[in-house]
Amino acid sequence: MKLYDRIPSGNCHKVRLLLNLLNVEYESIIVDAMNKQHKSEEYLKMNPRGQFPVLLDGVNTIYDSHAILVYLAAKYANQSWYSQDPYEMGLIQEWLSFSSNEIANSLNIARLKYKFNADVDWDLAQKKSILVLKLVDQHLKTRDWLELDRPTIADLACYPYIALASEGKIDIQPFLNVYRWIQNVQNLPGYIGMDGMIQ
Amino acid sequence: MKLYDRIPSGNCHKVRLLLNLLNVEYESIIVDAMNKQHKSEEYLKMNPRGQFPVLLDGVNTIYDSHAILVYLAAKYANQSWYSQDPYEMGLIQEWLSFSSNEIANSLNIARLKYKFNADVDWDLAQKKSILVLKLVDQHLKTRDWLELDRPTIADLACYPYIALASEGKIDIQPFLNVYRWIQNVQNLPGYIGMDGMIQ
Repeated sequence: MKLYDRIPSGNCHKVRLLLNLLNVEYESIIVDAMNKQHKSEEYLKMNPRGQFPVLLDGVNTIYDSHAILVYLAAKYANQSWYSQDPYEMGLIQEWLSFSSNEIANSLNIARLKYKFNADVDWDLAQKKSILVLKLVDQHLKTRDWLELDRPTIADLACYPYIALASEGKIDIQPFLNVYRWIQNVQNLPGYIGMDGMIQ
Repeated sequence: MKLYDRIPSGNCHKVRLLLNLLNVEYESIIVDAMNKQHKSEEYLKMNPRGQFPVLLDGVNTIYDSHAILVYLAAKYANQSWYSQDPYEMGLIQEWLSFSSNEIANSLNIARLKYKFNADVDWDLAQKKSILVLKLVDQHLKTRDWLELDRPTIADLACYPYIALASEGKIDIQPFLNVYRWIQNVQNLPGYIGMDGMIQ
């Protein structure tokens, strides 16, 4: 199994994290993003969206971090990180969607400014980030995990850009339930972190 | 089954469309968005994100249009609109994520300006919309449906805001494969449209 990977990418971290938690062996192939390898003709044949990560598993090519999480959980985890129950699948999807839109367009954008010097509207991203963190914090008030009383791909999808908040100068300290949940993720056997994540 | 619904919402349309295609009976409860019913205390108990649609099915409450599609397909369609195969699930998720982020932040935003007079950056939304349409058009060059050679929730997730493009003054006429795919969706038995959709 090969993962087209980029170390500072939270989306790649989601996938690396699940692979490690599942103890699945893989080869990390670092995408040369500085030289726009992910926009090259060869790369676009693999992922026409020009994004990372991409997973190659035998004859299967799969891109989009959440699609890879769904694939790995269904294929290698006997659904323990996902579910086959329709309602439980729906609850997990609520958070995959939330991560794809709300988190990607708040905490991720705030981080782009300070980590990668991107030309983005940090003030707007900060406002959206606080709304995201309030929602997650309120949801976790009575829970240890986002859904199903156990760690699932919902948690992994939302985790990296929340745990990387301080790199975007977003303060998560007031969100005590979020902080507790981050610690729950970090205590999972097989957990791996990345630079810049809150400890 | 009750659907908290808003007629001009493409996200609500996705769900209405699948319910009709599956011939599942439901009651549509129109959310009074003008008076911010979806931000009321009572509504937020049902969906803390303050968005529509929300589906109530017996004891199950589920929000986020894509989560509802996953739930309905898994529960009422014997997976014919989704899949239980890990790779096929991943392929469908690629498009749910694409709709949650890329489509929601392009075609949907462009439409907000002209349909709802929202204060948004139409020029940016237009540029993003063209990239989205190019990607979908290229993907559909050799396909009738987004994945699995059959209609799935991937198609339904992406369909409304693409079919509503002209309401945001985005011209989809150059994208012949997209146009053919729209017609495929519209030819499905049980199809329902909504005002403003390309015919």
